[in-house]
Amino acid sequence: MELNQRQKEIIDLVKNNQPITSQEIADNLELSRAAIRNDLSVLSLLDILDAKPRVGYFYKGERPEPGSLDSLFNIKVKEIMSLPVNLVEDTSIYDAIVTMFLEDTGTVFVIDEYDELVGVISRKDLLKMAMGNRDLNEIPVSLAMTRVPKLITAIKDETLLMAARKIVDNKVDSLPVVEDEKVIGRISKTSISNALVDYATEIGSD
Amino acid sequence: MELNQRQKEIIDLVKNNQPITSQEIADNLELSRAAIRNDLSVLSLLDILDAKPRVGYFYKGERPEPGSLDSLFNIKVKEIMSLPVNLVEDTSIYDAIVTMFLEDTGTVFVIDEYDELVGVISRKDLLKMAMGNRDLNEIPVSLAMTRVPKLITAIKDETLLMAARKIVDNKVDSLPVVEDEKVIGRISKTSISNALVDYATEIGSD
Repeated sequence: MELNQRQKEIIDLVKNNQPITSQEIADNLELSRAAIRNDLSVLSLLDILDAKPRVGYFYKGERPEPGSLDSLFNIKVKEIMSLPVNLVEDTSIYDAIVTMFLEDTGTVFVIDEYDELVGVISRKDLLKMAMGNRDLNEIPVSLAMTRVPKLITAIKDETLLMAARKIVDNKVDSLPVVEDEKVIGRISKTSISNALVDYATEIGSD
Repeated sequence: MELNQRQKEIIDLVKNNQPITSQEIADNLELSRAAIRNDLSVLSLLDILDAKPRVGYFYKGERPEPGSLDSLFNIKVKEIMSLPVNLVEDTSIYDAIVTMFLEDTGTVFVIDEYDELVGVISRKDLLKMAMGNRDLNEIPVSLAMTRVPKLITAIKDETLLMAARKIVDNKVDSLPVVEDEKVIGRISKTSISNALVDYATEIGSD
């Protein structure tokens, strides 16, 4: 849907003066509040503006055209992340491997007693430990994991493209999605591949 | 670039009657050869038509608009595949794990004495074997691999989207790219993630 000239002016006004009331917007455009009511409704419906009662309008963002490359790149991490698999620090390597098979995941996250992220352990890390001829029941995951702050993390409001760049640039298979030091999700090369295929299916591409 | 009506008619004629000479195209459109010369040049320059001397015109295909979702989906497997890592059937599990670390790959392919693909072995398969408390030097990869014909494979002229669908639907990390029973490449969730990020960089998206 194409925005009209007045709607674009309103967006610019809100961007530069938020929060701004409908009266202030009307005054700025030298129009009545009634004249812009329809435009404000459209912009709110499109999720471009957000209205808070007795505060005013905020700018939420313009959405890229559906079915475009931008709208694929701008899918949010929270829309495609999967559930994280978390283990505590004293879990044995053996149990971590079993968990990885049971949960069919390539990466598990390690958390401390406050549920905060302390490390990440990958299939590759576990394979390395399994080669060591040691008793895997005796070694805790904390000995094999990559630790905070060396970890690369994602946040739920990042875009698919931003997360994909982190994954590619750092040559990792997945990132923990973190909020308030806690792991709330997992985004991986699998999530990215799934998102691409799902998106193509949704818009009917072959 | 938008094609004009006559250019579209020429494309249809060539598609349905290839090879077709410029004289035949002109006759069909009830025009002179001179009148369509310019259109034929444009279509050849755009790589939509191919001209073979003394044979006629062939249809090569229309390219999706650069920077579009379609042009991302239609990237060919051969443009993004990586080099395969191949082992012979009697390689030990131990050596396969070492190769996987040295080559930094998540999947290795197993070939026979004619260099033909016989199986695929993943990090997950190797981790399972490593858990078995057996001497990994004594077990050949052929005991742990997924065998032809159970394997899913790709071909070099498939699109990124077709390969991604196979990877996602079959829940595998990568596919061997096969030609004449031989492995000529590897396409994986990593290739797909890399292609997406590279494509975004190329067209200047953030």
